[in-house]
Amino acid sequence: MQKLEFYFDYLSPYAYFSWKKIEEFCPNHNVDLTIKPVVFGKLLDHWGQLGPAEIPPKREWLFKYCLFYASSNNLPLSFPKYHPFNSLSALRASLKMVSGEHQEKLISALFHAGWGEGKDIGNIEVVSNIALKIGLDGNAIKKTIDSKDVKEALKNNTDEAISKGVFGVPTIIFDNELFWGNDQFEYLSNVIKGTYKTNDAIYQDIINRPRAIDRVKKNDS
Amino acid sequence: MQKLEFYFDYLSPYAYFSWKKIEEFCPNHNVDLTIKPVVFGKLLDHWGQLGPAEIPPKREWLFKYCLFYASSNNLPLSFPKYHPFNSLSALRASLKMVSGEHQEKLISALFHAGWGEGKDIGNIEVVSNIALKIGLDGNAIKKTIDSKDVKEALKNNTDEAISKGVFGVPTIIFDNELFWGNDQFEYLSNVIKGTYKTNDAIYQDIINRPRAIDRVKKNDS
Repeated sequence: MQKLEFYFDYLSPYAYFSWKKIEEFCPNHNVDLTIKPVVFGKLLDHWGQLGPAEIPPKREWLFKYCLFYASSNNLPLSFPKYHPFNSLSALRASLKMVSGEHQEKLISALFHAGWGEGKDIGNIEVVSNIALKIGLDGNAIKKTIDSKDVKEALKNNTDEAISKGVFGVPTIIFDNELFWGNDQFEYLSNVIKGTYKTNDAIYQDIINRPRAIDRVKKNDS
Repeated sequence: MQKLEFYFDYLSPYAYFSWKKIEEFCPNHNVDLTIKPVVFGKLLDHWGQLGPAEIPPKREWLFKYCLFYASSNNLPLSFPKYHPFNSLSALRASLKMVSGEHQEKLISALFHAGWGEGKDIGNIEVVSNIALKIGLDGNAIKKTIDSKDVKEALKNNTDEAISKGVFGVPTIIFDNELFWGNDQFEYLSNVIKGTYKTNDAIYQDIINRPRAIDRVKKNDS
């Protein structure tokens, strides 16, 4: 079975929206889901980019658009109690090495608590309570996510994402191709089914078009 | 009649895709189109952001996704001969004070030549030839766009965009609200028709959520 990798951070509303789709999308397309929690801030640091919450009018537009999107797709949306928040505990708990066979269930519960119900999923007590509710040992998780191995695993996920060119969340990687954002499912579906294929000759032609201009970088001036 | 402002730069493939929709969208929604050419690079400079063509894997993903989007929407897509390119001449020619009653026709012709046919619309000779073909005086335009007034007008458009919070292209402003990107037409359509309205109380609640964390800015360290 072919593998679909889902890279996400709980900070992103589009990751929440995509997660709502992905669990049905994978069995429908006969692909095996691999879940990759990553630290969004580290991706931004690496690529020298700002997140939407770091540009005030972009944050305002995004929040309004998310309200429309949720309303027109009948999704509960409340936004996390604080935003941005420190998502490290939630991300670490969401690693397979921590939540094991409950991984998908825990991620659904965390996304729902944060984005659907407005809880503070940046708080480790909230995270462990949610884990407890779905049948995990909340106290054990609190200890485990503080271990060196778990911290290292999340860091490795993020480094792996960067090495594969992941520049934002949510990103899906399928067959070495990146699909960034919440609007990629039609495209991805066609690629998986083989009903669409990038024309390599055309792609090579356009991607190799010479640059005629570049912005002057602040450090150069 | 209510006014819809369309902010764009020829550098953006999504501006091309949006332009293809906007000319039908406005009469269908009984709104009056005001066209605002702006300098994308100046928006990026102001907000401290990178453009998609400045992050290599984002550029690669974007180019591939554009090929899919054009293919599934039956739009001609070839990409401009050079990319990024200097779009100043094309933008200046696209100001109402330069192209007058031919403004929309010229913009359609420039987008088509650049993105549909792969011409170098960063070249002033190409721009003036396209103007000539649609019935404008290409030589007069070449002289006009070099005038202080015209340069100032494009700069003013860009400054106005920034003052209104425009952080990317294409952006539509309707009733003081920003709609960024090529995927906003369903949202915008509902807003114009009054079939959707942002719930102000909910919006004020979420936009005022406290930040629990911020990335350390490079300059602070």
